This record gives sequence, C-alpha cells and structure tokens, in this order.
Amino acid sequence: MESTNTPRSALKPDDIHKVSPALASYTQRAITEDLWKRPDLSSRDRSLITVAALIARMQTIGMLHYFNIALDCGVTPAELSEVVLHLAFYSGWSNALAAVPILKDMFAQRGVATHQLPEVSPKLLPLNEEAERQRATTVEQNFGAVAPGVVQYTTDLLFRDLWLRPALAPRDRSLITVSALIASGYVPQITYHLNRAMDNGLTQQQASEMLTHLAFYAGWPPVFSALPVVKDIFAKRSGSTSKKGS
Amino acid sequence: MESTNTPRSALKPDDIHKVSPALASYTQRAITEDLWKRPDLSSRDRSLITVAALIARMQTIGMLHYFNIALDCGVTPAELSEVVLHLAFYSGWSNALAAVPILKDMFAQRGVATHQLPEVSPKLLPLNEEAERQRATTVEQNFGAVAPGVVQYTTDLLFRDLWLRPALAPRDRSLITVSALIASGYVPQITYHLNRAMDNGLTQQQASEMLTHLAFYAGWPPVFSALPVVKDIFAKRSGSTSKKGS
Amino acid sequence: MESTNTPRSALKPDDIHKVSPALASYTQRAITEDLWKRPDLSSRDRSLITVAALIARMQTIGMLHYFNIALDCGVTPAELSEVVLHLAFYSGWSNALAAVPILKDMFAQRGVATHQLPEVSPKLLPLNEEAERQRATTVEQNFGAVAPGVVQYTTDLLFRDLWLRPALAPRDRSLITVSALIASGYVPQITYHLNRAMDNGLTQQQASEMLTHLAFYAGWPPVFSALPVVKDIFAKRSGSTSKKGS
Repeated sequence: MESTNTPRSALKPDDIHKVSPALASYTQRAITEDLWKRPDLSSRDRSLITVAALIARMQTIGMLHYFNIALDCGVTPAELSEVVLHLAFYSGWSNALAAVPILKDMFAQRGVATHQLPEVSPKLLPLNEEAERQRATTVEQNFGAVAPGVVQYTTDLLFRDLWLRPALAPRDRSLITVSALIASGYVPQITYHLNRAMDNGLTQQQASEMLTHLAFYAGWPPVFSALPVVKDIFAKRSGSTSKKGS
Repeated sequence: MESTNTPRSALKPDDIHKVSPALASYTQRAITEDLWKRPDLSSRDRSLITVAALIARMQTIGMLHYFNIALDCGVTPAELSEVVLHLAFYSGWSNALAAVPILKDMFAQRGVATHQLPEVSPKLLPLNEEAERQRATTVEQNFGAVAPGVVQYTTDLLFRDLWLRPALAPRDRSLITVSALIASGYVPQITYHLNRAMDNGLTQQQASEMLTHLAFYAGWPPVFSALPVVKDIFAKRSGSTSKKGS
Repeated sequence: MESTNTPRSALKPDDIHKVSPALASYTQRAITEDLWKRPDLSSRDRSLITVAALIARMQTIGMLHYFNIALDCGVTPAELSEVVLHLAFYSGWSNALAAVPILKDMFAQRGVATHQLPEVSPKLLPLNEEAERQRATTVEQNFGAVAPGVVQYTTDLLFRDLWLRPALAPRDRSLITVSALIASGYVPQITYHLNRAMDNGLTQQQASEMLTHLAFYAGWPPVFSALPVVKDIFAKRSGSTSKKGS
C-alpha cells in the first residue's frame, strides 16, 4: 500500500517522533489505538468523516494516508470519487481540486480505472417532491430576490441533481456534508444538514461520536462551537419523537 | 500562456477526469460554459472575485490558472500586484506571501518588469475627510481603549494609506475585500464593507451575482452565511433610497 | 541560520519586491521595523503568537522563517516542540502535522536531539482541583449527554494532561491558544481562554498588543471579530477587580 511516488506532502511516521515524541505517542495511543476503536462509529464512517474534514480544510498532508484507509475500510473507489465531487460544492471547488492529484495517483497505483467511477449523468434517485418543495419555497422566500443565481443553482445543481446521484448513499452524503460544515466552522448551516442527516438515517449516537472524532481532526474549538447547535437539534428531535408517541 | 515551469501545485485538466468524470463535467458545463457567461458580472470582475477567494483561502492550486485569466480579462499586472498587497491586510500577510512565488513566475514569463508595478509611495487619492472622521470616531469610541494599536494602524495604514493608493479603483478594492470576507466566513465585517463597496459603485445586481460566483469558488456554506446580512443591507439601502426620493 | 535545504515553500526576500515593491516595503517598515519593536510585547511573545497563527492557519510558507526567529528570540526547542503538540488539539491534528517536516529539518540543522524534547509522560504540574471541578461540571451539565466522548477526552486529554505538561508555562500555553483561536476566527471560545490566559498571567496590555500583532499575521477581519469579546472581558475583569478593592 505504501506509495512509491508519495506526494511531496507525505509524512514519515518517524518524523513526528523527531519533532515531538509526545505528539507521536498521542497519535498512536489516543487516535489509532483508542479513538478509531470506539464502538459508536464504524471505521468506514470514521474514514469518511476524516476525509471530509481534510478536504474541507484543504489539508493535503494527510490525504494519501486517509484515502488509502478509506478504501481499506470498505469505501469503494466510486464512493471516494463522489465524496470529492460532493465537497466541491460544500467546501469550494479548489478544495476538491486540491485532492485530485493525490487521488489520481492513488487510483493509478491501485489500478482503479475510469469506468469504475461514477457516471457523469446517471439515473438519479427518486426526489422527495414534498420535502424539496418546502426547502425550495423557504429559500426562495428568504433569498430569491437577494441572490436569484444562488437560489437557482442550489435547486438545479444541488437538490435536484448532486444529492440524487446514486454513487453515494444519502446518509453518507449527509455525513460528509455535516462533517465538512463542522470542520470548517460553518455553524449556521449545521441545523439544516444535521437534521437532514438524521432524517437520512444517521443515529444520534453516531452524530455524537462524529463530534468526538472531529475534535481530533479539526481541533477542539470548531467542535465546541457546534455543540450548542447539536444539543438543540437533539432536544427538538427527541421532543418531536415523544410527541409522536403521546 | 501555458507555463513551461508550472508550480508544483498546477493541475492538468485530464487529472480531474481520472478522479471524477462528473467533477470534470461540472467544471466545464456549470462553471466555464455557464457561470462565467452570466451577464450580471464582467469576466474582469469574476476574475477579481476568484483571485480574491483563492488568496483569502490560500488555495495556491488554482492561482496560476486564475492569475493568467485575470490578465487575459483585462486586469493589468499593476492591478493584480495591488490585489496581493491589499489582501495582505484583509486576509493575513502569509496569504499574500503564498501568492508571491506564483505571481513572480507568471510576471517573469509574461515579461512584466518591476517598474510596471505600483509605486511604494504614490500620490494618494483624495480622502473623504468627513466619512473617514466618522469611521475613525466610531472605531475609536468602540475599541480605542481595548486595542489602541489596532485602531491606530487601521487609520494610518489602511484608511489613510492603502485604500487611497491609486493602483486599484476604490470599487475594485471593495470588490476584492468583500469577496475575501465572504470566502473566509468573516460575516460581521460584511456590513461595513459591502456598504462601502456599493458606495464605491458596486451595483446591487453585481453584489448579488458576486454571491453566485463565490458559491462555486468558496463553497455554498459561506455564501448562505452571508445571505442574511446581504439581504439586510439591500433592504436598508433600498429604504434609504426611497426616503431620499420622498 | 539560513537553511541549506529550505522547504519548497520558502520565500526569497527579493521575490516579494518582484511582485509588489509596496508589499516588500510594508513588510520591512510596518512589520519588521515597527510592529516587532513595539514595547508592549517581548519578541519572544511575538514569535509565539506568530507561530501559533501560522500553525492555526496551516501556513507552511512562513514556518521555517518564524520557527528560526522563535528560537533566536529565546523560545527553546523543547518549548517549540510543545507548541506543535498543544496546537494539535486546538487547531486540528493535520495542522500540527503540517509543521512537522519543517520543524524536523530545522532541528536537524540546528543539531537539536530528541532527548532535548519534552518527555512523553513527564511529571505533571499540580492541578487546580477546584477550578477544574467547576470547568468539568459546567461542560458535563451542558454537553455531557450530547457528546460524552468529547466531554471525556476534554477532561482526560486536555485539562488533566496536556495543560499540566511542564514543557510550556501555562501563561505561554494560554497565549498560543488564544492566538490560534483569534487567528482561526473561533470567536465563541475566546471568552474562556482569554480569561484563563489572564488568570495565568497575561496582562491586559499584552492581550491588547496580541491583537495588534495578529492583525498583520491573521488579517484585520478576525481581529475585528474578536474585539467586542475582548472588550467585554476587559470590562468584566476590571469591574471584578474594582469590587475586590472595595
């Protein structure tokens, strides 16, 4: 698995030790042997969250390492390709492009051919017309007059196209979206997308553990900024569940 | 135009296709053939917005490509040089410095000589003394006792020096400032600078389309974070225009 | 001191002049000859603030330069190693790892051996049990049910381990934490950590001048976003001091 042509930014494990033996030790004990073994998230989910955080923060230094881990944890090459596409919209085009040379080399080394990757124009998943009508109406009423271009592309490119592409399960698409939002400190967008993620099947336990995972990969501060919003969402959803039961 | 000595970070077009044919297709169809052709902003404005977003987010990977596009769209080498200077203050010194090796190589390839670049100490544009007195008084009252150093440099280096340099039209200086703020998620600063941009001649239509453009280059989330603030500014300015008319 | 094997990202001084003579001039006059000579912060403090901002923003381009300056200003290799470790938690693991190859080369060039670096498991500084109980109780009550993993690691890894490591004085640990928070735009976290920094010995004058310094290295906008919070903290602490006196 070791690359023969590692990107310039790749890090040798012993390098960390030469700079901070404690950092090398925390990396091994707290992250590799502890965090990744915690039961509330699969390794596959953890690899998706990590990759999303790296792309969102354009941290090319860890990409080769974690792209390989993602494939080893059961993410398919087609899914990984689709993660990059999805995050072009949610993290900015250049963030996705920064991942391209690294993923291209890895696909070449692993013999992944272009025909294995998601199609340009696949048959889309069925649209939840009612939910999309609500979303589009709210956004149109709020911002249709302010930024008609943004509103139009949001409908046409994101919610009637990107989100319906079958190459990534909606739950996984939501998982990487929320991870990217938290890792980038985009707090106001968390409410809509974490609710959508949970509607798409992410459990509260998984969402909670996603925060734990991101504390290491994005740092403690953006996770603490997200906590009040996440707490509020959990409370409201729990309330509405109770009401349903009553 | 193709560089013979491209920076290490330059991306070959076919690389995108090898990682995600869909990303290559969206890049071509949605960005190159659609976004850039929309009428509400000139290509020159779009190139300034893009360059500002790249520098603000320190995305060196796209810089050579878009620096070349900027010059091809009518931005002069002197203006591009001044964009880098301006964003040193609004995006941080290292963000500007990250652009330096790339722009240096491009200037060398295009035969741009140092004497074509903006002077160190040019004759400054006239100051709007009344507006500057108001700004300085407000900032001094709010923060003069908290951070006298920040307040002093803001007056001396920014508003009585940088903003008066003739190498970039005030409207263009405002355009890159607001673009950098939105692309970086610095929401609280948008109000002052978008108002200033519109005072400096940016139309509401152009400001709106700037958001559309930035959705692709900075990602959807920071644009949606900016939308409520922009909406509020548009509403207040429209109200004050009506009042003037009454 | 000049590296014979500079990282690819290192910048030659004359490069700035070839791109913007004005940027070269501001760098020399406003930063080197003015900002760094201001009396309210030592050069050592300024170098710590700068290094924290660079790591927090993953700006590898300036790291070799400012790592060298830090050592020349009296930061020890062990302290600089510990800065990287500390910011792994506060800026994200990859931000710290991005500094590793550069610091490794610099340590090699300066003949810094691994045994000079902080131990993996040193004798920890004494814990302020009462303050830690208050902190832990508040966080547990707020977020214990939402993100038990985050809360547990925050106690075990951060406040009962990292913050007690003797390799960096608590005041310096606080200084780099607050600098990283401001440089990254993590406003909600400033209140707790600036208060902690001032409890740990950072004076109001130093905190104020830290903002001035960061305006150049992180850009004006994140500093202006921090100003209202800092103003509020100064006011509250000044009020509580007066009360103590009465």
